[in-house]
Amino acid sequence: MPVPFTYSRTVQFSETDLAGIAHFANFFRWMEEAEHAYFRSLGLSVRTEYQDQHLGWPRVNTSCEFFAPARFEDQLQLKLRIAKIGEKSITWEIEFLKDDTRLALGKATTVCCTWTNNALKPIPIPPEIRLKLFPA
Amino acid sequence: MPVPFTYSRTVQFSETDLAGIAHFANFFRWMEEAEHAYFRSLGLSVRTEYQDQHLGWPRVNTSCEFFAPARFEDQLQLKLRIAKIGEKSITWEIEFLKDDTRLALGKATTVCCTWTNNALKPIPIPPEIRLKLFPA
Amino acid sequence: MPVPFTYSRTVQFSETDLAGIAHFANFFRWMEEAEHAYFRSLGLSVRTEYQDQHLGWPRVNTSCEFFAPARFEDQLQLKLRIAKIGEKSITWEIEFLKDDTRLALGKATTVCCTWTNNALKPIPIPPEIRLKLFPA
Amino acid sequence: MPVPFTYSRTVQFSETDLAGIAHFANFFRWMEEAEHAYFRSLGLSVRTEYQDQHLGWPRVNTSCEFFAPARFEDQLQLKLRIAKIGEKSITWEIEFLKDDTRLALGKATTVCCTWTNNALKPIPIPPEIRLKLFPA
Repeated sequence: MPVPFTYSRTVQFSETDLAGIAHFANFFRWMEEAEHAYFRSLGLSVRTEYQDQHLGWPRVNTSCEFFAPARFEDQLQLKLRIAKIGEKSITWEIEFLKDDTRLALGKATTVCCTWTNNALKPIPIPPEIRLKLFPA
Repeated sequence: MPVPFTYSRTVQFSETDLAGIAHFANFFRWMEEAEHAYFRSLGLSVRTEYQDQHLGWPRVNTSCEFFAPARFEDQLQLKLRIAKIGEKSITWEIEFLKDDTRLALGKATTVCCTWTNNALKPIPIPPEIRLKLFPA
Repeated sequence: MPVPFTYSRTVQFSETDLAGIAHFANFFRWMEEAEHAYFRSLGLSVRTEYQDQHLGWPRVNTSCEFFAPARFEDQLQLKLRIAKIGEKSITWEIEFLKDDTRLALGKATTVCCTWTNNALKPIPIPPEIRLKLFPA
Repeated sequence: MPVPFTYSRTVQFSETDLAGIAHFANFFRWMEEAEHAYFRSLGLSVRTEYQDQHLGWPRVNTSCEFFAPARFEDQLQLKLRIAKIGEKSITWEIEFLKDDTRLALGKATTVCCTWTNNALKPIPIPPEIRLKLFPA
């Protein structure tokens, strides 16, 4: 991903808290929205079938640093890039910008898995998906 | 249900909004929590199997009237009662109290359904479940 | 509002539940998002100052009927219209469409209020706001 | 805090997603709930006044590692401890357990601030609060 993918998001009223700013847990929901929008921009979906199995991308860890608050009706730009792609996992880095101000920096490692109601099993990222997500 | 079932709930920080009060959409999540707690109090779960099928209770309508705001760390009492039980559906009524003040009054009609990933199909409430939920 | 205002929304992963469909409480958040987008489309905001006071629009009641489920990555169209405008309140009606299928119908009555940390007080809708929201 | 503080939490239906497990962003809400419950257990609140100012504890960073999924109606135990207390900040560590299984491990650094609608300003943790949170 030579150029970051950008996802735009308006901060909604229900996402604010009594301190008058966006509640921090929403940054994690927004990161995930940006990842999924990136998949869609490539004609993919995180919810897909592969060789007759459900494919999914649960996260094994995620973090966020907060530099400045986001407020109701702020127009945020999320700059998503792939920091690392492994055999079975992807490490995402997401910068949250308001105009030129960096509000936050998030990271997440997601693992390619087949899943049923009872189990998640890591598998190598299918080559055709890998190639779209991260062209050589 | 001759005596209402009571579910207690502390208003959390992430449930408030910039007006300094609990965001109204949370009242609908809390109503559902109270219904599910009532099922559990009877040894039931809304997520169950019945004759080899998933059973669920999607709602066909729900409403809420708001009389006074709920605030961070308020201890709410939700008084749940069954206003009506039909062949396939239940109409719930939930009163939201803080001490002696009535904050809100919610209603919801849920329908007993079997469900798969692609379809929801209403069925008569299984007699053993009906008897527990609403003893004659 | 002779022609309804349309607000588009993609159903996000975090908005689904274990039944594989959008959790019903999100429809109430989406209704509110549509109202606020309508305000913004007119150059207004629900969070505004008026004669040195905070102005807000808490709801006194809201309801939703559900006809068909919304699913992950569905593109929803919310058609918002003002069903009634009173001296101090507005009754909104919001239709949720996926392509030509009507998924749900929501209603909400919101009251124009001044607010402080401790109190909400209904006031007549300021004429300049009324005229924009509901041109004669 | 020689012995960790324990906060119990039932996973709610609205907290699950279409993969049939609790959505990861909820772990961050639950961590915050545990912190606030710890404050309350000491007769404190995160929302308080100090020398005529609002006091708050915004987080500057937070992270979570996920080892196993949480599911609907699981009874979680959150074990909260203070990993580090600085002049103006606290680093929390929260272990998520289901019976004897460790589901996740979260961390968060929160900073003691005075806040107004427009600004957050770090201040030394007031001694009387520090002593309660972290008795020597």
